[in-house]
Amino acid sequence: MELYREPGYDKVTVAEIAARAGLTRRTFFRYFSDKREVLFFGTAKLEAFVAEGVLAAPPGTPALAAVATALAAVARQSDEDSAFADFARRRHALIRAYAELRERELAKLASLASATAAALRRRGVAEPAASLAAEAGVAAFKVGFERWVDDPRRRKMGHHVRQAISGFGTLVLEQVATRGTAIDKP
Amino acid sequence: MELYREPGYDKVTVAEIAARAGLTRRTFFRYFSDKREVLFFGTAKLEAFVAEGVLAAPPGTPALAAVATALAAVARQSDEDSAFADFARRRHALIRAYAELRERELAKLASLASATAAALRRRGVAEPAASLAAEAGVAAFKVGFERWVDDPRRRKMGHHVRQAISGFGTLVLEQVATRGTAIDKP
Repeated sequence: MELYREPGYDKVTVAEIAARAGLTRRTFFRYFSDKREVLFFGTAKLEAFVAEGVLAAPPGTPALAAVATALAAVARQSDEDSAFADFARRRHALIRAYAELRERELAKLASLASATAAALRRRGVAEPAASLAAEAGVAAFKVGFERWVDDPRRRKMGHHVRQAISGFGTLVLEQVATRGTAIDKP
Repeated sequence: MELYREPGYDKVTVAEIAARAGLTRRTFFRYFSDKREVLFFGTAKLEAFVAEGVLAAPPGTPALAAVATALAAVARQSDEDSAFADFARRRHALIRAYAELRERELAKLASLASATAAALRRRGVAEPAASLAAEAGVAAFKVGFERWVDDPRRRKMGHHVRQAISGFGTLVLEQVATRGTAIDKP
């Protein structure tokens, strides 16, 4: 990632990245489809971890709770790794700075939502509930993650992700309290 | 869009698209930053329409309701345009077929969520509630839109978007009913 800061993401070539990592250009492309992918290494592992978490929830767990528990476990594991916060913040600054990295990040989040929805369907959750719960969870994770990255008080990721997930519930309950109905009758 | 089907999106050049539209290459690039952008013409108008809808909700309207009303208006307007459904389905098939178009689509949805959150903040909704309500609304719109595109019974977009939005509420209420708590305590 150092090469993406100096000389800069848009200037560095795949050959230079490969050389720094002690790889040939050919080996690089065996692992990464392009230079953007390097920053998203580990996404497949994250998807598998979240899917496992969703599947591991006790029978009868509501869909949103299964997703929330799995995402909270991701945040907890990240918080336990002391080097992760610094790495994640530098990586996120880079992603924010380049539109093509932002697009790839969104594609990874969409892929995470799809994997999460698939895990929910394996639990017997029907569509569109499975996709909605997955999208809601990933959206909350995204909002929580961004608040964590920007938090001047440096509170843990687990705090921000939990707060974002509970924020969803609060919004719906506010709606029910005001309208005496769910959000389908605006 | 015909040129994206024949000879195909990956084969057609900007020069060919410009020629078909009676534009010079130079004029094309005054309107579109690249050939992907052609398919997302109208996104800025959509963002403005949703933001206006959010701002037009009566004072005291809960955040989610303001978003739901604005997005339901988009679906209603789309349903009124008889040529839109066919256009939207062909366009969506194209987007699904190419990863780089899917990434651009996700970027446009993220931009729509940002514009929606900004409109909510102008209504006095605090963060992270504004971002969460916006992300939830756009996620519901995305899920509803996809179910509409694939619906063999060809029900209206308004039906699917309303169903997706109300699905969110149902998920949270299911959670509350099961756990006697909001989703922050999984």
